[in-house]
Amino acid sequence: MKVLDVVNNPQDLKKLNKEELSLLAKEIRQEIINTVSINGGHLASSLGVVELTIAMHYVFDSPYDKIVLDVGHQSYAHKILTGRKNKFKTIRTYNGLSGFPCRSESEHDAFGAGHSSTSISAALGFAVVRDIKNEDYKVVAVIGDGSMTGGLAFEGLQNSGHLKKNMLVILNDNEMFISQKVGAVAGYLAKLLTVGMARKVEEKVMKAVSRLHGFGSSFRKFIKRAKVILFPGMLFEEMGFTYIGPVQGHNINNLIAILENIKGIEGPVLLHVITKKGKGYVPAEKEPIKFHGVGKFDVKTGEVVKTNEATYTKVFSDTLIKLAHFDKKIVAITAAMPEGTGLDKFAKEFSNRYFDVGIAEGHAVTFAAALAAGGMKPVCAIYSTFIQRAIDNIIHDVALQNLPVTFVLDRAGLVGEDGGTHHGSFDLSYLNYIPNLVIMSPADENELQHMLKTALNSNKPCVIRYSREAGVGVKLDKFPCVLKIGKGAVAKEGRDICFLAIGSHVSTCLKAAQLLEKENINAFVVNMRFLKPLDVDIIKDVFSKTKKFVTIEENSLIGGFGESVKGVLFGTWAKVECIGLPDKFVEHGSVKVLRKKYGFTPEGVANKALKMFADEKN
Amino acid sequence: MKVLDVVNNPQDLKKLNKEELSLLAKEIRQEIINTVSINGGHLASSLGVVELTIAMHYVFDSPYDKIVLDVGHQSYAHKILTGRKNKFKTIRTYNGLSGFPCRSESEHDAFGAGHSSTSISAALGFAVVRDIKNEDYKVVAVIGDGSMTGGLAFEGLQNSGHLKKNMLVILNDNEMFISQKVGAVAGYLAKLLTVGMARKVEEKVMKAVSRLHGFGSSFRKFIKRAKVILFPGMLFEEMGFTYIGPVQGHNINNLIAILENIKGIEGPVLLHVITKKGKGYVPAEKEPIKFHGVGKFDVKTGEVVKTNEATYTKVFSDTLIKLAHFDKKIVAITAAMPEGTGLDKFAKEFSNRYFDVGIAEGHAVTFAAALAAGGMKPVCAIYSTFIQRAIDNIIHDVALQNLPVTFVLDRAGLVGEDGGTHHGSFDLSYLNYIPNLVIMSPADENELQHMLKTALNSNKPCVIRYSREAGVGVKLDKFPCVLKIGKGAVAKEGRDICFLAIGSHVSTCLKAAQLLEKENINAFVVNMRFLKPLDVDIIKDVFSKTKKFVTIEENSLIGGFGESVKGVLFGTWAKVECIGLPDKFVEHGSVKVLRKKYGFTPEGVANKALKMFADEKN
Repeated sequence: MKVLDVVNNPQDLKKLNKEELSLLAKEIRQEIINTVSINGGHLASSLGVVELTIAMHYVFDSPYDKIVLDVGHQSYAHKILTGRKNKFKTIRTYNGLSGFPCRSESEHDAFGAGHSSTSISAALGFAVVRDIKNEDYKVVAVIGDGSMTGGLAFEGLQNSGHLKKNMLVILNDNEMFISQKVGAVAGYLAKLLTVGMARKVEEKVMKAVSRLHGFGSSFRKFIKRAKVILFPGMLFEEMGFTYIGPVQGHNINNLIAILENIKGIEGPVLLHVITKKGKGYVPAEKEPIKFHGVGKFDVKTGEVVKTNEATYTKVFSDTLIKLAHFDKKIVAITAAMPEGTGLDKFAKEFSNRYFDVGIAEGHAVTFAAALAAGGMKPVCAIYSTFIQRAIDNIIHDVALQNLPVTFVLDRAGLVGEDGGTHHGSFDLSYLNYIPNLVIMSPADENELQHMLKTALNSNKPCVIRYSREAGVGVKLDKFPCVLKIGKGAVAKEGRDICFLAIGSHVSTCLKAAQLLEKENINAFVVNMRFLKPLDVDIIKDVFSKTKKFVTIEENSLIGGFGESVKGVLFGTWAKVECIGLPDKFVEHGSVKVLRKKYGFTPEGVANKALKMFADEKN
Repeated sequence: MKVLDVVNNPQDLKKLNKEELSLLAKEIRQEIINTVSINGGHLASSLGVVELTIAMHYVFDSPYDKIVLDVGHQSYAHKILTGRKNKFKTIRTYNGLSGFPCRSESEHDAFGAGHSSTSISAALGFAVVRDIKNEDYKVVAVIGDGSMTGGLAFEGLQNSGHLKKNMLVILNDNEMFISQKVGAVAGYLAKLLTVGMARKVEEKVMKAVSRLHGFGSSFRKFIKRAKVILFPGMLFEEMGFTYIGPVQGHNINNLIAILENIKGIEGPVLLHVITKKGKGYVPAEKEPIKFHGVGKFDVKTGEVVKTNEATYTKVFSDTLIKLAHFDKKIVAITAAMPEGTGLDKFAKEFSNRYFDVGIAEGHAVTFAAALAAGGMKPVCAIYSTFIQRAIDNIIHDVALQNLPVTFVLDRAGLVGEDGGTHHGSFDLSYLNYIPNLVIMSPADENELQHMLKTALNSNKPCVIRYSREAGVGVKLDKFPCVLKIGKGAVAKEGRDICFLAIGSHVSTCLKAAQLLEKENINAFVVNMRFLKPLDVDIIKDVFSKTKKFVTIEENSLIGGFGESVKGVLFGTWAKVECIGLPDKFVEHGSVKVLRKKYGFTPEGVANKALKMFADEKN
């Protein structure tokens, strides 16, 4: 019998003794490792906070007390402890548990997450409501050292320090950002760790100082101020928080004692907890970055199941390096995603032309704009869903000034298991209306290299968006070449119907065209390449031959490619059907499952076409 | 003969003596006061930095050295000193100088601005380029205490502190935010001012301390750390900056001496300068908020030319207060714009339900989401152009969680003299694709009160967008009532053509319909009210009577209302012409001039209709 068997909710936890709590931590850890080894997920962060999560739920009373988890990479133990242990094996699968905190999933998920640095703002919101309503629940935010580097976290800290509400911010410092030396705050946190050690001398010093009567009040003031040095955490103290820490984050009983101790402190408190990413699973402890977000792996060996397909990410990475050898103006920027964007290799070859700015998408874009204003050719590689954070910077700093920044949006369209917070569902819509932008999406990995060359050659602000999936499998041309901006290409000539595609669904359409041949339907396929400027000529040209069109884009149908095509063909005899994402937040599940569901398959496209022919007959 | 007469560019400045520099400051100040009294503009900030601007241009060599002005409210003296004194009288007028730094206007404007907190990121970009290129120019950012509260500024500071580039950030602390007590940083800066005074004791104390040999190395370490207390600016020091200040900002010669002194310091330096908003013009010194952004005024008396028209802002303000008396769940949030949004009155009546979060739009929205999650009805009032900063927060924190936050977007559409950075040109486009959102725009000020009631009654995330202009002048119903969500209304029955309008151009269309009567054309006018959900039924209903449509929206034509209407009528016999903003950044000029230019007048609308009839005949 396992301890976990008797723990169905946080209340059950409070009945356990010290030893049982330790056992529980082990069991939860094993459950997480086993499940993530099959489903993939955010392993290292979740392993790091098992003890902290147990301690929090032991001391606080969720859901009455509000626990707000930043980003949610660390939410797995929380899910297991809050009534979801039996469903945990379904995490990140279609119709299963979400990989992130989710209000609709459990009342224990006080505030949903997925993007970084929202937790302090949200916790402050709950604290303010409590005081307006005269309630007395506690509010706790758990935020990693990485998330703490985001400007939004700073805004939250600063407003919290001002409003002085009772709330606890737990800084879960797994030294991730310290090891990567990203940002001044990382350096600051590192310093705190060493200062923490120096604390022991404090008492001795204070005693000695108390003997000095002779120096008058200004010296006493000086000593009083010196106190904040001996007590580290000035950065947070200056923001109005009471800083406590650093404390070790893997001793449950210590954590419980500390949380019990501080939960009565008035005003905002920051508890600095040191945890180890991947704690308790040796491969993840050794390679926390590899096991941050991981796919299937072998529990015994830690070997990750690898695919050998050339992803768009890899082609981008290789091409950028190739081009950067010839063009010294190329610089690259990532917002804390060197591996995910493929810029890690670039960083090794061109360390002085590479900038990881931390989780700070807004700054990344404005910084890139200035690099361009200074004459460089910045390439700003940010996931589609995360660059939502920097739309104003794209509009105000890049596009309005017409500066040649190249935005590379990986993870455009469906991303799969990470779900609604992470799908790149909207980029075509939130970029299309921005003046001066060139927006393109490659049909395959070979075209990606040409598009990158095109963008860097254009002297314009450009966006290249592509999927996280493997490429189509085409051969790569030896040299990237410059495409004509705003010009699409006929991928297959035809007669009866035309598929207009942007991005990798050109190949889906080609396969759909093959399927339709069996029905004696000869379909055109056009690779539009550019959403903006849109190739109006090629659309009109095809229109002279056929009146039936199907558009396809892995983006919301509102404000995207299909609507633009309809704009061109409005008032003509054309029939246009659009395949794209519906007006809702798309659920999580494998990309394969979701693509099937939303019609992004050869069969889905062919059926859309067949329906048009059938409707015509009726 | 004035000193200003011989100063055509920063080089001329360097030939002046102390006395002449002081005279120059006076003359520039007068020039600014006179011009703003006619053209309107950002008076108080610009008056506050006259001496600082002179000193900067005396010490640095613009445009070789890069001077980056944050927001640009303080740019007037800079413009006068950098070759634009003769055009200064045209500032903010159509075809005249921009009210903000603008790269296309002058090589001295290293980086354009208009939105807050971008300057540190931009300055860092220039510093990085310099070092890559092995150049040796200086980089200076000038940022106000208000802008310093934005998360983007923090991201910039943090990345700058990390990269350790030589750059100077001048914190222009006009105590604006201190007086308003917004945010913890304001409190921190206030503390610095007093700490600055304590500095005098430092030498004495250090001398005394140096006599203490007996306490061993840990005490010496303690003293070493205590140094950062005696030298204020820890917050910035911890971020990796060398902090210098606070220094008085109205003594040109002192400023010159300090800038000369510090320009050789290695690494990032923050110079904390204390200035007085409105300096040198008594009415502005007394009422800096009133003279922050001001319209025409009488120089002698400081009386601002007032209009008595009921603006949408005022109706929103009054209605919200009315509703908040009955509904205790209503809370209001502004991002440092209490007067502009009209929430200042609400703040007076409901101080515990009002939150000014500082220039932190992202936090404002996420905070509002949590307030809604906690059961409140938050109203988040942010200008259209500024909420571009918080699109991800709207998507990720509000809409995805389907939380009932009401966004009130003032300054939607054309804002006039502030120009391209400030027009609310894009909100319909960047909101329309967001699932779960209700998006509406009132035809007149009376409908605004109903929409506010509707939103607060809906339990959905809602957006209400309206113009900064005066209302239509209709009578206000005594009680706000709830509108049916997603339903438009026929404003005028007709036969020959239909105007579909969203927002206050319903009245423009009614006037256009009157004009067309002379041509024997009887036009329908439909007040669509909602962009989302769009009233498809009313469009189809009208289509059964007429096939000609003109849509009108003060928003980009891409991704906006017109495209949505075309989506509904696609594949029918309908002819649809769309009036909206073109795919470019619209210039500055009065709203009247711009509305005429872009066809948002009764004549413009009528002409569009007449052209459709003429085209039909051809």
